[in-house]
Amino acid sequence: MDKKEIFNATTPDCPIRNIIAHITDKWSLLVLYTLEQNNVLRFNDLWRQIPDISQKMLTSTLRHLEEDGIISRELFAEVPPRVEYRLTKRGMSLLPHLDALIAWGIEHFDEIVKDRNKKK
Amino acid sequence: MDKKEIFNATTPDCPIRNIIAHITDKWSLLVLYTLEQNNVLRFNDLWRQIPDISQKMLTSTLRHLEEDGIISRELFAEVPPRVEYRLTKRGMSLLPHLDALIAWGIEHFDEIVKDRNKKK
Repeated sequence: MDKKEIFNATTPDCPIRNIIAHITDKWSLLVLYTLEQNNVLRFNDLWRQIPDISQKMLTSTLRHLEEDGIISRELFAEVPPRVEYRLTKRGMSLLPHLDALIAWGIEHFDEIVKDRNKKK
Repeated sequence: MDKKEIFNATTPDCPIRNIIAHITDKWSLLVLYTLEQNNVLRFNDLWRQIPDISQKMLTSTLRHLEEDGIISRELFAEVPPRVEYRLTKRGMSLLPHLDALIAWGIEHFDEIVKDRNKKK
Protein backbone atom coordinates (compact mmCIF):
# COMPACT_ATOMS: atom_id res chain seq x y z
CA MET A 1 0.00 0.00 0.00
CA ASP A 2 1.35 3.44 -0.82
CA LYS A 3 0.80 6.66 1.16
CA LYS A 4 -2.27 7.67 -0.83
CA GLU A 5 -3.89 4.32 -0.14
CA ILE A 6 -3.08 4.54 3.56
CA PHE A 7 -4.76 7.93 3.64
CA ASN A 8 -7.79 6.63 1.75
CA ALA A 9 -8.21 3.78 4.19
CA THR A 10 -9.69 6.03 6.90
CA THR A 11 -11.73 8.53 4.89
CA PRO A 12 -15.52 8.12 5.03
CA ASP A 13 -15.67 6.38 1.62
CA CYS A 14 -12.74 4.11 2.47
CA PRO A 15 -12.39 0.39 1.73
CA ILE A 16 -12.65 -0.54 5.41
CA ARG A 17 -16.05 1.11 5.87
CA ASN A 18 -17.38 0.18 2.42
CA ILE A 19 -15.95 -3.20 1.56
CA ILE A 20 -14.15 -5.00 4.38
CA ALA A 21 -16.65 -4.36 7.17
CA HIS A 22 -19.42 -5.71 4.92
CA ILE A 23 -17.80 -9.09 4.42
CA THR A 24 -16.39 -9.56 7.91
CA ASP A 25 -19.62 -9.40 9.87
CA LYS A 26 -20.41 -12.62 11.67
CA TRP A 27 -22.93 -14.03 9.20
CA SER A 28 -21.01 -13.18 6.04
CA LEU A 29 -17.90 -14.85 7.45
CA LEU A 30 -19.90 -17.96 8.33
CA VAL A 31 -21.56 -18.10 4.90
CA LEU A 32 -18.25 -17.66 3.08
CA TYR A 33 -16.52 -20.19 5.28
CA THR A 34 -19.33 -22.72 4.79
CA LEU A 35 -19.32 -22.23 1.01
CA GLU A 36 -15.57 -22.71 0.98
CA GLN A 37 -15.95 -26.04 2.77
CA ASN A 38 -18.73 -27.22 0.44
CA ASN A 39 -18.03 -25.69 -2.98
CA VAL A 40 -21.71 -25.27 -3.91
CA LEU A 41 -24.79 -25.20 -1.66
CA ARG A 42 -28.51 -24.63 -1.88
CA PHE A 43 -30.21 -22.20 0.48
CA ASN A 44 -31.50 -24.92 2.81
CA ASP A 45 -28.14 -26.69 2.99
CA LEU A 46 -26.48 -23.44 3.97
CA TRP A 47 -29.15 -22.86 6.58
CA ARG A 48 -28.67 -26.35 8.00
CA GLN A 49 -24.97 -25.66 8.50
CA ILE A 50 -25.54 -22.29 10.22
CA PRO A 51 -28.55 -23.22 12.34
CA ASP A 52 -28.70 -20.07 14.47
CA ILE A 53 -29.13 -17.65 11.55
CA SER A 54 -32.70 -16.52 10.77
CA GLN A 55 -34.11 -17.11 7.30
CA LYS A 56 -34.42 -13.36 6.78
CA MET A 57 -30.81 -12.71 7.82
CA LEU A 58 -29.48 -15.53 5.63
CA THR A 59 -31.43 -14.13 2.65
CA SER A 60 -30.10 -10.63 3.29
CA THR A 61 -26.51 -11.81 3.84
CA LEU A 62 -26.58 -13.82 0.58
CA ARG A 63 -28.00 -10.85 -1.34
CA HIS A 64 -25.29 -8.49 -0.11
CA LEU A 65 -22.52 -10.94 -0.90
CA GLU A 66 -24.02 -11.40 -4.36
CA GLU A 67 -24.26 -7.62 -4.91
CA ASP A 68 -20.57 -7.32 -4.09
CA GLY A 69 -19.73 -10.12 -6.51
CA ILE A 70 -18.32 -12.35 -3.76
CA ILE A 71 -20.78 -15.19 -4.36
CA SER A 72 -22.99 -16.13 -7.31
CA ARG A 73 -26.61 -17.24 -7.25
CA GLU A 74 -27.81 -19.61 -9.95
CA LEU A 75 -31.49 -20.37 -10.43
CA PHE A 76 -32.49 -23.66 -12.09
CA ALA A 77 -36.03 -23.62 -13.50
CA GLU A 78 -37.11 -26.91 -11.97
CA VAL A 79 -40.14 -27.83 -9.90
CA PRO A 80 -39.56 -26.89 -7.14
CA PRO A 81 -37.02 -24.31 -8.35
CA ARG A 82 -33.44 -24.99 -7.29
CA VAL A 83 -31.11 -22.15 -6.28
CA GLU A 84 -27.40 -22.74 -5.89
CA TYR A 85 -24.80 -20.52 -4.28
CA ARG A 86 -21.07 -20.67 -4.82
CA LEU A 87 -18.01 -18.45 -4.46
CA THR A 88 -17.07 -16.32 -7.48
CA LYS A 89 -13.49 -15.85 -8.65
CA ARG A 90 -13.46 -12.61 -6.64
CA GLY A 91 -14.77 -14.44 -3.58
CA MET A 92 -12.10 -17.09 -3.95
CA SER A 93 -9.40 -14.41 -4.03
CA LEU A 94 -10.71 -13.19 -0.68
CA LEU A 95 -10.78 -16.60 1.00
CA PRO A 96 -7.08 -17.04 1.80
CA HIS A 97 -7.20 -13.79 3.81
CA LEU A 98 -10.28 -14.89 5.72
CA ASP A 99 -8.67 -18.29 6.31
CA ALA A 100 -5.62 -16.59 7.82
CA LEU A 101 -7.86 -14.49 10.04
CA ILE A 102 -9.91 -17.50 11.16
CA ALA A 103 -6.74 -19.49 11.86
CA TRP A 104 -5.57 -16.57 14.03
CA GLY A 105 -8.91 -16.65 15.86
CA ILE A 106 -8.66 -20.38 16.47
CA GLU A 107 -5.08 -20.02 17.71
CA HIS A 108 -5.95 -17.25 20.19
CA PHE A 109 -9.45 -18.40 21.11
CA ASP A 110 -8.72 -19.90 24.53
CA GLU A 111 -6.48 -17.11 25.80
CA ILE A 112 -8.87 -14.35 24.62
CA VAL A 113 -11.88 -15.98 26.25
CA LYS A 114 -9.83 -16.42 29.45
CA ASP A 115 -8.75 -12.75 29.40
CA ARG A 116 -12.33 -11.60 28.88
CA ASN A 117 -13.63 -13.58 31.85
CA LYS A 118 -10.81 -12.29 34.04
CA LYS A 119 -12.03 -8.72 33.57
CA LYS A 120 -15.66 -9.45 34.46
CA MET B 1 -6.53 -26.15 10.38
CA ASP B 2 -7.45 -29.76 11.01
CA LYS B 3 -10.88 -31.39 10.67
CA LYS B 4 -11.83 -30.74 14.28
CA GLU B 5 -11.03 -27.05 13.95
CA ILE B 6 -13.02 -26.78 10.72
CA PHE B 7 -15.97 -28.27 12.55
CA ASN B 8 -15.54 -25.90 15.48
CA ALA B 9 -15.48 -22.88 13.21
CA THR B 10 -19.24 -22.95 12.64
CA THR B 11 -20.58 -24.09 16.02
CA PRO B 12 -22.29 -21.44 18.17
CA ASP B 13 -19.21 -20.89 20.36
CA CYS B 14 -16.88 -20.81 17.37
CA PRO B 15 -13.97 -18.41 16.77
CA ILE B 16 -15.79 -16.64 13.92
CA ARG B 17 -18.75 -15.69 16.09
CA ASN B 18 -16.75 -15.01 19.25
CA ILE B 19 -13.42 -13.58 18.17
CA ILE B 20 -13.15 -12.66 14.49
CA ALA B 21 -16.50 -10.89 14.08
CA HIS B 22 -15.67 -8.74 17.14
CA ILE B 23 -12.48 -7.33 15.69
CA THR B 24 -13.62 -6.97 12.08
CA ASP B 25 -16.52 -4.61 12.62
CA LYS B 26 -16.03 -1.24 10.95
CA TRP B 27 -14.91 0.73 14.00
CA SER B 28 -12.55 -1.91 15.41
CA LEU B 29 -10.84 -2.22 12.03
CA LEU B 30 -10.45 1.56 11.80
CA VAL B 31 -9.10 1.82 15.36
CA LEU B 32 -6.61 -1.01 14.79
CA TYR B 33 -5.53 0.37 11.45
CA THR B 34 -5.08 3.88 12.91
CA LEU B 35 -3.06 2.54 15.86
CA GLU B 36 -0.88 0.59 13.46
CA GLN B 37 -0.12 3.76 11.51
CA ASN B 38 0.66 5.77 14.67
CA ASN B 39 2.16 3.32 17.18
CA VAL B 40 0.65 5.05 20.24
CA LEU B 41 -2.30 7.44 20.46
CA ARG B 42 -4.37 9.26 23.04
CA PHE B 43 -8.14 9.10 22.93
CA ASN B 44 -8.54 12.51 21.29
CA ASP B 45 -5.89 11.80 18.66
CA LEU B 46 -7.67 8.60 17.73
CA TRP B 47 -10.94 10.47 17.57
CA ARG B 48 -9.44 13.15 15.31
CA GLN B 49 -8.33 10.47 12.84
CA ILE B 50 -11.74 8.75 12.75
CA PRO B 51 -13.95 11.82 12.77
CA ASP B 52 -17.27 10.10 12.06
CA ILE B 53 -17.18 7.82 15.12
CA SER B 54 -19.16 8.97 18.17
CA GLN B 55 -17.38 9.40 21.50
CA LYS B 56 -19.55 6.68 23.00
CA MET B 57 -18.78 4.22 20.19
CA LEU B 58 -15.04 4.96 20.31
CA THR B 59 -15.06 4.36 24.08
CA SER B 60 -16.94 1.09 23.67
CA THR B 61 -14.76 -0.10 20.77
CA LEU B 62 -11.58 0.62 22.75
CA ARG B 63 -12.94 -1.19 25.80
CA HIS B 64 -13.80 -4.32 23.81
CA LEU B 65 -10.41 -4.39 22.09
CA GLU B 66 -8.76 -3.99 25.50
CA GLU B 67 -10.87 -6.80 27.00
CA ASP B 68 -9.74 -9.10 24.21
CA GLY B 69 -6.10 -8.13 24.81
CA ILE B 70 -5.71 -6.65 21.31
CA ILE B 71 -4.81 -3.17 22.56
CA SER B 72 -3.55 -1.85 25.90
CA ARG B 73 -4.69 1.24 27.78
CA GLU B 74 -2.17 3.06 29.94
CA LEU B 75 -3.23 5.80 32.36
CA PHE B 76 -0.69 8.46 33.40
CA ALA B 77 -1.62 10.27 36.62
CA GLU B 78 -1.06 13.76 35.30
CA VAL B 79 -3.27 16.84 35.36
CA PRO B 80 -5.23 16.47 33.17
CA PRO B 81 -4.81 12.66 33.18
CA ARG B 82 -3.28 11.23 30.02
CA VAL B 83 -4.49 7.92 28.56
CA GLU B 84 -2.51 6.17 25.84
CA TYR B 85 -3.58 3.30 23.62
CA ARG B 86 -1.30 0.98 21.70
CA LEU B 87 -1.37 -2.46 20.12
CA THR B 88 -0.37 -5.39 22.33
CA LYS B 89 1.82 -8.24 21.13
CA ARG B 90 -1.40 -10.17 20.43
CA GLY B 91 -2.78 -7.24 18.47
CA MET B 92 0.41 -7.00 16.45
CA SER B 93 0.15 -10.67 15.53
CA LEU B 94 -3.31 -9.93 14.13
CA LEU B 95 -2.27 -6.94 12.06
CA PRO B 96 -0.66 -8.70 9.07
CA HIS B 97 -3.94 -10.53 8.47
CA LEU B 98 -5.97 -7.32 8.65
CA ASP B 99 -3.43 -5.63 6.35
CA ALA B 100 -3.89 -8.39 3.78
CA LEU B 101 -7.66 -8.01 4.02
CA ILE B 102 -7.50 -4.22 3.68
CA ALA B 103 -5.13 -4.51 0.72
CA TRP B 104 -7.67 -6.86 -0.89
CA GLY B 105 -10.40 -4.29 -0.26
CA ILE B 106 -8.35 -1.50 -1.80
CA GLU B 107 -7.56 -3.67 -4.82
CA HIS B 108 -11.22 -4.56 -5.46
CA PHE B 109 -12.81 -1.31 -4.28
CA ASP B 110 -13.62 0.22 -7.68
CA GLU B 111 -15.00 -2.93 -9.29
CA ILE B 112 -17.15 -3.83 -6.26
CA VAL B 113 -18.66 -0.32 -6.05
CA LYS B 114 -19.32 -0.46 -9.80
CA ASP B 115 -21.00 -3.88 -9.50
CA ARG B 116 -23.17 -2.65 -6.63
CA ASN B 117 -24.40 0.37 -8.56
CA LYS B 118 -25.13 -1.75 -11.63
CA LYS B 119 -27.64 -3.77 -9.64
CA LYS B 120 -29.52 -0.74 -8.28
